[in-house]
Amino acid sequence: MLVLESIPIKETDLRRLYKDTREQTQALATPLEIEDFVVQPVKDVSPLKWHLAHTTWFFETFVLNPYVSNYTVFHPKYSELFNSYYLATGNCWSRENRGQLTRPTVKEIVGYREYIDNRMVDFLSSNNISEEIRQLIILGINHEQQHQELFLYDVKRILGNNPLYPEYVAPQFTSNKPNRKTNWLSLEEGIYEIGFHGAGFHFDNEKSKHKVFIHDYQIASQLVTNEEFIDFIESGGYKKFNHWLSEGWDWVNENQIQAPEYWKKEDGKWWHYTLNGLELVKGEDPLCHVSFYEADAFARWRGYRLPTEQEWEVACNTFSPSISEKENILETKNYKVVQTETHDFFGNVWEWTASSYTPYPFYQPPAGTLGEYNGKFMVNQMVLRGGSFGTPKNHIRSTYRNFYHPYLRWMFSGIRLAKHI
Amino acid sequence: MLVLESIPIKETDLRRLYKDTREQTQALATPLEIEDFVVQPVKDVSPLKWHLAHTTWFFETFVLNPYVSNYTVFHPKYSELFNSYYLATGNCWSRENRGQLTRPTVKEIVGYREYIDNRMVDFLSSNNISEEIRQLIILGINHEQQHQELFLYDVKRILGNNPLYPEYVAPQFTSNKPNRKTNWLSLEEGIYEIGFHGAGFHFDNEKSKHKVFIHDYQIASQLVTNEEFIDFIESGGYKKFNHWLSEGWDWVNENQIQAPEYWKKEDGKWWHYTLNGLELVKGEDPLCHVSFYEADAFARWRGYRLPTEQEWEVACNTFSPSISEKENILETKNYKVVQTETHDFFGNVWEWTASSYTPYPFYQPPAGTLGEYNGKFMVNQMVLRGGSFGTPKNHIRSTYRNFYHPYLRWMFSGIRLAKHI
Amino acid sequence: MLVLESIPIKETDLRRLYKDTREQTQALATPLEIEDFVVQPVKDVSPLKWHLAHTTWFFETFVLNPYVSNYTVFHPKYSELFNSYYLATGNCWSRENRGQLTRPTVKEIVGYREYIDNRMVDFLSSNNISEEIRQLIILGINHEQQHQELFLYDVKRILGNNPLYPEYVAPQFTSNKPNRKTNWLSLEEGIYEIGFHGAGFHFDNEKSKHKVFIHDYQIASQLVTNEEFIDFIESGGYKKFNHWLSEGWDWVNENQIQAPEYWKKEDGKWWHYTLNGLELVKGEDPLCHVSFYEADAFARWRGYRLPTEQEWEVACNTFSPSISEKENILETKNYKVVQTETHDFFGNVWEWTASSYTPYPFYQPPAGTLGEYNGKFMVNQMVLRGGSFGTPKNHIRSTYRNFYHPYLRWMFSGIRLAKHI
Amino acid sequence: MLVLESIPIKETDLRRLYKDTREQTQALATPLEIEDFVVQPVKDVSPLKWHLAHTTWFFETFVLNPYVSNYTVFHPKYSELFNSYYLATGNCWSRENRGQLTRPTVKEIVGYREYIDNRMVDFLSSNNISEEIRQLIILGINHEQQHQELFLYDVKRILGNNPLYPEYVAPQFTSNKPNRKTNWLSLEEGIYEIGFHGAGFHFDNEKSKHKVFIHDYQIASQLVTNEEFIDFIESGGYKKFNHWLSEGWDWVNENQIQAPEYWKKEDGKWWHYTLNGLELVKGEDPLCHVSFYEADAFARWRGYRLPTEQEWEVACNTFSPSISEKENILETKNYKVVQTETHDFFGNVWEWTASSYTPYPFYQPPAGTLGEYNGKFMVNQMVLRGGSFGTPKNHIRSTYRNFYHPYLRWMFSGIRLAKHI
Repeated sequence: MLVLESIPIKETDLRRLYKDTREQTQALATPLEIEDFVVQPVKDVSPLKWHLAHTTWFFETFVLNPYVSNYTVFHPKYSELFNSYYLATGNCWSRENRGQLTRPTVKEIVGYREYIDNRMVDFLSSNNISEEIRQLIILGINHEQQHQELFLYDVKRILGNNPLYPEYVAPQFTSNKPNRKTNWLSLEEGIYEIGFHGAGFHFDNEKSKHKVFIHDYQIASQLVTNEEFIDFIESGGYKKFNHWLSEGWDWVNENQIQAPEYWKKEDGKWWHYTLNGLELVKGEDPLCHVSFYEADAFARWRGYRLPTEQEWEVACNTFSPSISEKENILETKNYKVVQTETHDFFGNVWEWTASSYTPYPFYQPPAGTLGEYNGKFMVNQMVLRGGSFGTPKNHIRSTYRNFYHPYLRWMFSGIRLAKHI
Repeated sequence: MLVLESIPIKETDLRRLYKDTREQTQALATPLEIEDFVVQPVKDVSPLKWHLAHTTWFFETFVLNPYVSNYTVFHPKYSELFNSYYLATGNCWSRENRGQLTRPTVKEIVGYREYIDNRMVDFLSSNNISEEIRQLIILGINHEQQHQELFLYDVKRILGNNPLYPEYVAPQFTSNKPNRKTNWLSLEEGIYEIGFHGAGFHFDNEKSKHKVFIHDYQIASQLVTNEEFIDFIESGGYKKFNHWLSEGWDWVNENQIQAPEYWKKEDGKWWHYTLNGLELVKGEDPLCHVSFYEADAFARWRGYRLPTEQEWEVACNTFSPSISEKENILETKNYKVVQTETHDFFGNVWEWTASSYTPYPFYQPPAGTLGEYNGKFMVNQMVLRGGSFGTPKNHIRSTYRNFYHPYLRWMFSGIRLAKHI
Repeated sequence: MLVLESIPIKETDLRRLYKDTREQTQALATPLEIEDFVVQPVKDVSPLKWHLAHTTWFFETFVLNPYVSNYTVFHPKYSELFNSYYLATGNCWSRENRGQLTRPTVKEIVGYREYIDNRMVDFLSSNNISEEIRQLIILGINHEQQHQELFLYDVKRILGNNPLYPEYVAPQFTSNKPNRKTNWLSLEEGIYEIGFHGAGFHFDNEKSKHKVFIHDYQIASQLVTNEEFIDFIESGGYKKFNHWLSEGWDWVNENQIQAPEYWKKEDGKWWHYTLNGLELVKGEDPLCHVSFYEADAFARWRGYRLPTEQEWEVACNTFSPSISEKENILETKNYKVVQTETHDFFGNVWEWTASSYTPYPFYQPPAGTLGEYNGKFMVNQMVLRGGSFGTPKNHIRSTYRNFYHPYLRWMFSGIRLAKHI
Repeated sequence: MLVLESIPIKETDLRRLYKDTREQTQALATPLEIEDFVVQPVKDVSPLKWHLAHTTWFFETFVLNPYVSNYTVFHPKYSELFNSYYLATGNCWSRENRGQLTRPTVKEIVGYREYIDNRMVDFLSSNNISEEIRQLIILGINHEQQHQELFLYDVKRILGNNPLYPEYVAPQFTSNKPNRKTNWLSLEEGIYEIGFHGAGFHFDNEKSKHKVFIHDYQIASQLVTNEEFIDFIESGGYKKFNHWLSEGWDWVNENQIQAPEYWKKEDGKWWHYTLNGLELVKGEDPLCHVSFYEADAFARWRGYRLPTEQEWEVACNTFSPSISEKENILETKNYKVVQTETHDFFGNVWEWTASSYTPYPFYQPPAGTLGEYNGKFMVNQMVLRGGSFGTPKNHIRSTYRNFYHPYLRWMFSGIRLAKHI
């Protein structure tokens, strides 16, 4: 499994961290054609050039504009065009129409990035960076990292439904992880503490540290693999209502779902589109691109269940080796990737939990516009944990709460099983 | 607030309980015209005659057909027409098309009820009732009680959007509850036990008793009233995005929501449709007919939040007087109602909680078809607690988990506030 | 084929004509259950009680209210509830929500009919009926006759999709028409006159008499029969794109059309719902319940085409025997029907033409509200000619232009072929 | 008004005609950015690169593949990707998903064009061109000319809804037509002949010459101007139901139509997007970008009507000067345009007629795949006549029948009035 290389979280030079993050985004864009940057195949997918511009808009709107004196905005219309959903900052171009805009061009957006980067670097070189501003810039960096991963999801969605199956990055990555059997990791009932505390960066939705009571449980040491899921398919898993939540069953039938996203069967073999083009599905790899409905149905079929996010976090804190110990770096044509040996809880695929995305006890969104960052999405979504091979390595931690609607599966999402004892 | 009179839960004569429940359903149907029984204004509302038939189908399908030897089904097509969602029992007539069927007529369905009642009473008078069958019959009775309440929701939805504002029951019920100020009830952090245990009837989704850790919190002694919600409206609550979840804000705008369901403002006064026709909104009455989005927005606007279902249950167990102590019975033309004095946690309106509807630890749906009763709906819905004036009194308890999608509000739903300390 | 008996068009006593027409409507309602009157399965179908009320509203709105001094409307809300689409008369309850209204009840609407009938008969017995008013009343009578036929369409649609296949009228009607082979009737090119002229009643859309040039053509003497259409089905007619208009092909695929409306194949035989319940399709009967798309595809498959409405009218004027000569009356339980021997151009099923519904030369809609009766629908619809067995016999004539959207087929619609020579 | 310069229809050198047409298409693409070629804002608009490829596919599919021995297709997938709607040639990539495909890139499609052009020129230089093949190539050229005009519509739709209002072609063209008053041209009743006959190129839908009877009528010598339509708007034309067809009125309300496409009012002035960016509306210019519903409503408001297509063709044959006499050529940066002085019936904007698009007498679609070119669209569309400033000049003639759904208006469509005498 791969983790996009990024900069150590301990980096003290904020300017360097800023520049590296911004360059990383640019590196992700390099292998693509201009045409790939424009379209929006479904509402949840944004045009790739929109990601380039929106992450830039974030620094302009929340750092440069309020804190740099005499700052001149790059373009008077960009504030509307590249605002995602912050209603407090003014109008947003509607999300479902992002794919209507062929202009500004990719080149113009790269110009926008350069303009902002120059001003940000100047600002970062000044002595005007208060702790509050510093926090905003770190938030902007983490925000850009989130969009780096979304960028990969959207690249895959845009290229992967094209019958020409274009390659994104030429080299072939192979997992060198031995095909180990999964174990059940056991945890005892009791009060545990979860949630973020401490000094580092974190999002508002993962704090604060708080107590939870958890009953005895076991959690799988490994993710569900492709071959395990093929067993589910071949045994008629998509055709038997009793494995499914009622909404999941409707979803299967309305969308005629028969396999994970990007999979198809030809001549008795399972193929899937990868960022390297169409490939045979490897049985021992972790399953990817399933919805919550599929994850839940698979777990029920196997006689198990998904872990709650509390169970996941406690197990991760207990068993996971630290991320940094196991990497070996691999240079590719376009950008650096990290291949890890035994990432158990981090960096394979996001793991669906049985928990809906609701506020933690004592949760308070930040005051002001950035209060819209996370809190207003806390309904009708499910929590995923652990990060994926597309998550920048210094961006993930055990308290991190990702969230998606249960029907979505274009992100890198998979399954870890749990059970009561 | 009103509670439909029903039979004490301690009733030992199952036959008497069966007959009383069935008669209660029939009593609810009495004030209506035949035309009212047929239509389905939206997918979530069922034709009233469908409720009469479906509850009957439940006894036929789960009791008579499997356990009475040589039982002859009343009509070979009813199995399909009146199955709600039990895929294991065969085809279901599609939910969204229930309102297409003008036949069987109301009279024919009443004949179906009589046929089943005669056979059920015969069966109940025999010596063939094992404990397992007894449990199925009690489930059928509780199932019918749930539909008695749904029947009232649907009566209101069917009559309440008619510009003629038809009356359902002539007498006017008035709350004789003193207009007491709400207090904050305080609870201390610690491990509590929630969930059903013991011998009485309960649904699968409310067991088992299990430990939860809860932080210090306070919960309001009274429900939010109409006049409090009018303050929210008049202060522009429906027009300021910052009170709302993102999906809630979309819901408000797409549906042009400006007040609770059935409310309208005319000549500076707020009116609402009640089961007695159009009436002025009484300020001191508990607010009813709000969606989760509205409940959540109101709480945020006030600076508070909704309680979790765990917090609700703990508070209820701690503070609520038992239901049976406070009633005084009031005879009406059509059926008996109970007017209670200080129902704090029970029987006013269902109270939205901050908890999504997910399985409890150790949850297992029952084996067989009845496993479809509750478990398959555990996604994308929110839990409500406490029952309403439309809930049969012997049907509610502190562990009872009701659940609805967050956008719905045709049921009798309101708000109780909570806060951390 | 059957024609609903009605009153001779020569009737000089307007009061008698009014009463007979009103009674005829009531007779159509007699065999039904109250439940059948309420629902609206699709937008194009109206609740049966709506027809009873709307035709009554027409007399109240266009005759009683403007011309009877001191007239008191029956109910202040009915003007809104039973207006179909006359925007000039004020608000209309939206068409797609007609099926939401369970009140007024059927009984109340019958009371409305009686109230209006009493006042109309009084008015008709007075000496205040100017020629203008007389024309309005005759229009109201013809309007009610149109709704008598729509009533039958809607009865069939409401009962025919019910898996219980309810009967509407018990007696079985059999065509005693000899199974004659169809001939090609030939007409020579030249200038012909079509369109209404003369003294009798007619709608605005069928006047005035005007010249058209028509090329040599032949038109079938008989309608396409069920067995001819079964050949089309069995030869894969619904599965070969090349028979179909592009929109027709999309319609077939999106709606999975495989046979005419109400048809289904079981055990190798074709069955269809009729107003007498489910019956075997009779091969020699005229085909009924096809859309324009099906009519057009069938004609192309056979190597022919549909006639234009000009060709139809010219052929009808040339070849059709007068309607009145061939009837023999048959008394049924509920109302009188007429069985005719050789109705070639009238009274079997409405015949799709190749002509879209556009204004005739010199067409002018009437001034005032009644200008909305016909003219505003002259786009995107196709003309049908000849009347059906559901058309009151004194209501049809060779110049009559009926019109429907090309995808509709719940009306009594069939096919007559034509070709160039 | 402008007409894109093209090659005289008399051109005897087919190779030259082929090359010029292909270059003209390429010239239209020159001013654009790569991003502009990819998106599909609505189903009716195709990605610009799709036009480049589809017109090329036409020559490959209908000329090279069947008639050049040993021809190798450029790419095995392009047959599916660039087929528009010819079901007989195999699968089509679905129309509504054309905008999902970012690959092949514009550069690859230009490579496709070059590959086909080289083979076509070789083939055209051979002696293997039968008359049948010659006709196919001329059809392909005319097909490409149709797409040149569609290309302009789609450029405008793609750029015109972008709030940045990008320019397509820098130079500003001004009409030098004197602002002449419109006259009523009179024609007498009688039999006329319309439809194509003769030797030149024509589409199947415009033949054959046939007789029609037309009554006395008058037709306007000039098109309706912007200032005339502004009168309609300012007098409340979009707010009064009585001007509108019923479907038109629904269309206005559902889409909140308040002005022609691309128009907006700011500070009391009307602006519209043009291919040169946002400009003030010029009162004396012909109105453009109205739907049939608007054209019909405007005519009714003025007390007139739209001409039928028969009336239009007869008037055009009677009064129109030949196109070629009045042009003066104007060189622009990117391609040649022709500015004409008094084009009455040709080359301003397409003129909606009152006629629906139905087959002419004796119409037969060609045998084989190309029978799908026109005939299968003959329902639910209205005929437009006369060509627009975007129509290649040698592509238009008096018998030419264009057709669009009545709600569309992104094409260059306007109004000529008519009346009976």
